[in-house]
Amino acid sequence: MTTTPLERTVYIVSDSTGITAETFSHSVLAQFENVNFRQIRLPFVDTLQKAEEAALRIDRNAAETGMQPIVFSTLVHPEIMARVRQANGIFLDLFGTFVSHIEQELGLKSSHSIGRSHMAANSEKYRNRIDAINFSLSHDDGQFVTNLGQADVILVGVSRCGKTPTSLYLAMQYAIKAANFPLVPDDFERGVLPATLAPHRAKLFGLSIQPERLAEVRHERRPNSPYASIEQCRYEVAEAERLMRREGIEWLSTTTKSIEEISTTVLQEVGLERGAY
Amino acid sequence: MTTTPLERTVYIVSDSTGITAETFSHSVLAQFENVNFRQIRLPFVDTLQKAEEAALRIDRNAAETGMQPIVFSTLVHPEIMARVRQANGIFLDLFGTFVSHIEQELGLKSSHSIGRSHMAANSEKYRNRIDAINFSLSHDDGQFVTNLGQADVILVGVSRCGKTPTSLYLAMQYAIKAANFPLVPDDFERGVLPATLAPHRAKLFGLSIQPERLAEVRHERRPNSPYASIEQCRYEVAEAERLMRREGIEWLSTTTKSIEEISTTVLQEVGLERGAY
Repeated sequence: MTTTPLERTVYIVSDSTGITAETFSHSVLAQFENVNFRQIRLPFVDTLQKAEEAALRIDRNAAETGMQPIVFSTLVHPEIMARVRQANGIFLDLFGTFVSHIEQELGLKSSHSIGRSHMAANSEKYRNRIDAINFSLSHDDGQFVTNLGQADVILVGVSRCGKTPTSLYLAMQYAIKAANFPLVPDDFERGVLPATLAPHRAKLFGLSIQPERLAEVRHERRPNSPYASIEQCRYEVAEAERLMRREGIEWLSTTTKSIEEISTTVLQEVGLERGAY
Repeated sequence: MTTTPLERTVYIVSDSTGITAETFSHSVLAQFENVNFRQIRLPFVDTLQKAEEAALRIDRNAAETGMQPIVFSTLVHPEIMARVRQANGIFLDLFGTFVSHIEQELGLKSSHSIGRSHMAANSEKYRNRIDAINFSLSHDDGQFVTNLGQADVILVGVSRCGKTPTSLYLAMQYAIKAANFPLVPDDFERGVLPATLAPHRAKLFGLSIQPERLAEVRHERRPNSPYASIEQCRYEVAEAERLMRREGIEWLSTTTKSIEEISTTVLQEVGLERGAY
């Protein structure tokens, strides 16, 4: 017996991209397991005209569904916010709630201006981020081994264990220059790390994975290939872990982890604490 | 005359990665322009032991600086949260504040369990995301033109106008399969789109950029090259915009925009509304 889940529309209204608010509201709503939320992001609501349009859209949804939609707002401009707040929804003022609290505690006034939480495109921080993305891209899968000395971290592990998405995420979100390098059967036969990596030992961090999961991932890529067979996966994972153990390389298992969880753990373990973008 | 900015430590305490909370708190704190915040993320605080360690760390900071740090919490487990709340800080309960509000409005109880806001590594959504990252990577810079029909969007524009970071961000954050394809002097001489792109006209979206900014970006990559000269940049940008105008391809200028802003605008313009990860 299943009960039909409840439905509810959720608007994320922002004067900027609304991406942060969308991810945030997703986490809040995950606490309500029985409700099926339909999230709609309304970005760049930075004029009264756009506030008017957003409010009308919310009103229309309320009228059509007979239920007030939830409105997550990160609007800062008082008049723009006031217009959206008048709409027929459950209004949640994401920033204001905490800004007021902090103002009181610190005895300071906030700027109340439409802020750009993402940095300007010509700032140094932004350039570092783009540099990191380019670095991680050009040092993906061991394809380019010069300048490895510039890497903040070098991820190693068997093919398809999650190195590439993790490297790109670290670059995108944290401006970390993350190279990655495959451990392959040739390395296992020789029983030592690839010579290219030897000078960069302190920057190495390993990713491993359960052989069963690895076989699944590889089957999607090359169905029924020897490369994807469970025997091959078991062999490679066992040998890679043996090699990492012998070389004193720390590693984590990616089997049940999201890219965010893997990246966070890598940052903790290699001691790279940085602000996110 | 400059005044020394105020300093304040900020802890982001989460039972998961804390990445969402960190980005969110960054936006909230951006409203206080005169304060220099030092943000420290404490992820995976999912046991009483780790709550104890986090609380002691906050207490130590308060004692050392003589100021209460700000504590952004996304802790859900009541006892773990209670322990961190006892610490000597300005405690802001990010989720709880809104969860209670929504509980009241919807007349529902939340699960109050430690949730994984990032999806499980073996879910279909997660696989789609990894597929999109692989697609965007292999279709970067026009390097691989088979399967272009599977693309959700194909970004076009001159070299270094921002196509690659945008494609990767769309894949990482929205599981959008974003190919990208350079417009080069050969195309301008012929005066038509590359033949590969012709069948996919409806999926094309253009990125452009101010020639001065483009020259800066290219100079970083290849200092003092003809490729980076302002004359070359002016020529390419003018020709690319002429070509896009003639072919009826919409475009946006990336000059002052962050990756998030470019991506959000692309999603709006091509009508790909999707939930973020």
